[in-house]
This record gives sequence, structure tokens and C-alpha cells, in this order.
Amino acid sequence: MLFLKLAPFDYFVLFLHWVVNLKRVKRVRGPMFEPAIIVHGGCGVYPREESLEPFLAGVKDAALQGHALLSRAGSAVDAVEAAVSVLEDNPLFNSGRGSVLNLDGQVEMDAIVIDGQTLGSGAVCGLRRCANPAWYTLRFHFQTRHCLLTGAGAQEFMRSQGIPEVPDSYLVVPRRRLAWEKTVLGDQRSPDTATASELSPGCDTVGAVAMDATGNVAAATSTGGTTAKLPGRVGDSPIIGAGAYADSDVGAVSTTGDGESIMKVCLARRTVELLEQSQTV
Amino acid sequence: MLFLKLAPFDYFVLFLHWVVNLKRVKRVRGPMFEPAIIVHGGCGVYPREESLEPFLAGVKDAALQGHALLSRAGSAVDAVEAAVSVLEDNPLFNSGRGSVLNLDGQVEMDAIVIDGQTLGSGAVCGLRRCANPAWYTLRFHFQTRHCLLTGAGAQEFMRSQGIPEVPDSYLVVPRRRLAWEKTVLGDQRSPDTATASELSPGCDTVGAVAMDATGNVAAATSTGGTTAKLPGRVGDSPIIGAGAYADSDVGAVSTTGDGESIMKVCLARRTVELLEQSQTV
Repeated sequence: MLFLKLAPFDYFVLFLHWVVNLKRVKRVRGPMFEPAIIVHGGCGVYPREESLEPFLAGVKDAALQGHALLSRAGSAVDAVEAAVSVLEDNPLFNSGRGSVLNLDGQVEMDAIVIDGQTLGSGAVCGLRRCANPAWYTLRFHFQTRHCLLTGAGAQEFMRSQGIPEVPDSYLVVPRRRLAWEKTVLGDQRSPDTATASELSPGCDTVGAVAMDATGNVAAATSTGGTTAKLPGRVGDSPIIGAGAYADSDVGAVSTTGDGESIMKVCLARRTVELLEQSQTV
Repeated sequence: MLFLKLAPFDYFVLFLHWVVNLKRVKRVRGPMFEPAIIVHGGCGVYPREESLEPFLAGVKDAALQGHALLSRAGSAVDAVEAAVSVLEDNPLFNSGRGSVLNLDGQVEMDAIVIDGQTLGSGAVCGLRRCANPAWYTLRFHFQTRHCLLTGAGAQEFMRSQGIPEVPDSYLVVPRRRLAWEKTVLGDQRSPDTATASELSPGCDTVGAVAMDATGNVAAATSTGGTTAKLPGRVGDSPIIGAGAYADSDVGAVSTTGDGESIMKVCLARRTVELLEQSQTV
């Protein structure tokens, strides 16, 4: 219509339209940001005789894989999921394979992924027999409009999505089994051959925050919880604003520590707020 | 030591100590506050032809029972639990008896109780076959140091505490069954005799906030979630900072509405923060 009737006013409209479009292009395509990712392997106690090297190599590997995805124009939310999945596969960390055992000797996992652009998230609590809870939460986020899933429904969603179930024998590693025996059954059941490093819980909850080339941020957190926790206990990790938070206008946070304390103060959300206040001060 | 060596400086120290103690006594024993309680029956759509009377009578009954407890020097956390339990027993409200049904036609409930004095809380998600989830969360809060429980562990805790299981036939009321049939199976399965009021979801999530005579506040929220929700879906209600929050220095909040939206912004915690800011401005 515009090209058929080029009165001066129409030229003006055409010009305005072009400016608006340019702005839209600028908003979509840039300004480009340098992609960045930060990964943590959780707070924990390291026995002095144990080398930190494999733990550092683990988080470095996760950061590199997340960053590789960002470099190929991947989104922040995909990058944090990729990084956390690497740590879930690594038996040294308390998430996925290598998760701690609850009081009944079972693995129950919590995880969350949150996208700072939309504040949309996917999370799961009390999940069993899943190798990569972070990947699960991302699928849950994209497939439904819900935020948090639990119980039999969470296991059913896994089946419906064709996510394979893994046996507990895959998720449970000797280090965690020994820590559980020490806590639940007492020292007398621990093999004499167990060293302090084998008994140590080592690393805790894992997490990642990332910013992609468009400037969007995301956060992910994944955990097996705490050794000998009450079956069904849920910590801060899968809770929006406690275990993770992301707002592309401000920043992204993934937390680790005593879940019950973190939940009380909505630590991740509070951190983003303080960050926002410091920007505006 | 102080009385053995009464130099002028020591008198000063003694005096200071007395002042500090007085302040402590004042903080513990008073000033006494007028107990107060606010109860909500959730947001929802009321059909025009239906009287609001029974709903109003329901929340009034809950408020009166909570207030009666406060008047007998009961604590804020006990009062909100008592008020919410009254609404859970009332089949008009979407909590306890009268909860909506999930996609599979089952009742799965979420609830939370939070004490503003300690920020300590008890919460449960995906709970089945329980008449009073609010009472359950209070027991969980007092019996353990955890905050949130789910899945098979949540059912096991119920059994271990001697909380009786109730059959689904107690929890499910005709109004909710019809709403479920209308949503899941389509109108053709709904009996021709069903009126709009029977099909209406009516009231939603319930909650209460209270302040006791010592000035402490508490909040509680309880819900059956949303009609035909994905089995295992958890909303905002059992999440600290989303479904409820309480801080005796500021105030208490219980929320109702679209859970997925409330969770995104940690609405209860955010409300308490805004209240705090308005107090200090």
C-alpha cells in the first residue's frame, strides 16, 4: 500500500518504519556480547591428602564445554545445561552420577534451569534413576508451561519423553556409598581399607551461570542433596530464587551450601536484587 | 567480679548492663500486641447465580477459629495452621477436602507454614491422601530441621507420625469431579443436570496470616493446585518466598493466583521486601 501512494506523508511513514526496524534488528542481533560462563562444583570439605586436580579439571571441562556451545551462538540456557550435565556425568561431584545417598541408601535428585530472558524455568525435585536431571529440567521447561515437577509424575514425564532410566548402580559411586555407611551405620561398617578421601563427601551441589552473545543470561543448579537426608527432603536447589535465579537485565546466580538456610532468605533472588541495587546506586 | 571492685567505671558498666537487660525483658515480655488474623479463600471465578454466602461464612469461620486460638495466647504459627485447617475441611475451597483433581483424576496437595520469628518453615508438595496438609507441615516443621518434603518420603513421614490416611473418596467432592470431567473428558461426559455452579472451580488456594500477642507473625498456604494439572506439578504454594513468607520484623504474606507466574518473581518475599522498604522510607 505504501509504495502505491507515495505522498510526502507516506515517505515519512516509510522512513519511520525503517528506523523502527533498524532498532529491532539492533535489539535482536546486537549489541553483541562476549559470551561468558562460570561453573561451580559446590562447597565441600577436601581432605588434605587428596589432590584438588581432578576436581579443578572437572569444573574446567564443564566450563569449556559450556563455552564451546556459547561460541557457536548457543543460548545461555543451553550452555548452563551443557556445563552442569558434564558435572553430573563426573562421579566426583554431588549431582547425577556421584550423588549422595538418602537415609534409605537411594539417590534422589533436585535440579533447576532458569532463563533470564523470560524468567521461565524448569525444575524437578526428588527425581530418581535419571542420569542428567539438568537436561530433564530443560526439556520440562520447553515442553510444558509448568515450573516444578515431583514424585511419580516426574518419573512418568521422564518415560513419556523417552529419557532412559539408569539403575542406581550407575548413579551410586563407592565414595558416596562409604560416606553413607559411615553416617548411617557407624564407623564399624566402613571397610578398614577406606581412606579419609574415600569417606569424604568431597564436592557438593553443582551449578553454572552464563551470558550468551545476545546478552541473555541463564543459571542452572543440580544436586543429590545431603548425605543421609530424610527420603523426600527437598533443598534449595530446585527452588526459583533459592537455588538459582536469572534476570537478563541484571545477572544470574547459582547457589550451594546449607539448603535449609538458603531457602529461608531466597538467596539467589536476593543476590540478584542486591546486584540490581548496586547497578542503580 | 563486678561487686568486688566497685570503682566508678564498674558502676557505669553495671548500669549499662541493667539497661541492656531491661531492653531484653521488654523485647521478650512485650509490648503486648492486639492479636490479628487475615484469611483468604483464594482467587476464583464465581458464577453469578451462586450465592457468595457459604464462601464468606467459610473464611469467617476459619478467621474466628484462628483468632480464638490467638486470644488464648496461642502462637501466630498455630493460629494460621488452625485457620487453614478449617478451610481444608470445608469442601468449598481448593485445599484438603475439595481439592481439584490432576490430569489422572487424583488429588495431589501442596502446603506450607512459615514462622516469622525464626524464618523456619515446613512445607510439602505432591502430598496424597492427607486431610490436613497444613497440620502436616507444622508437624514436619517441629519434628525435623528440613523445610520441604515430597514423594514417597512425604507419604512415609505421614505414616511415621501416625497421621491417618484418608481415601480419595473423602477428598474428592462432586463439584471438583465435574470440573475435571469437563476439562479432561469434554462437555459430553458432564451430566446434563450439572449447573454452572457445579462446574465452576469456585474458590482456589487458601491461606492465612496472623500476628500473636507477642508481635510475632506467621503465614500458611494450602492448595490442591490447578484442575487437570500434570501429575506431579508443583505450584507456588509450598515454596518459601513464593506461596508464603513471614518475617516478624516486617510482616507476613500468603499468595493465591497463577502459581507459575508467582514463582517467577518470588511474590511473597518481594511483597515483604516492599513492605520493609515502605516502613523505612
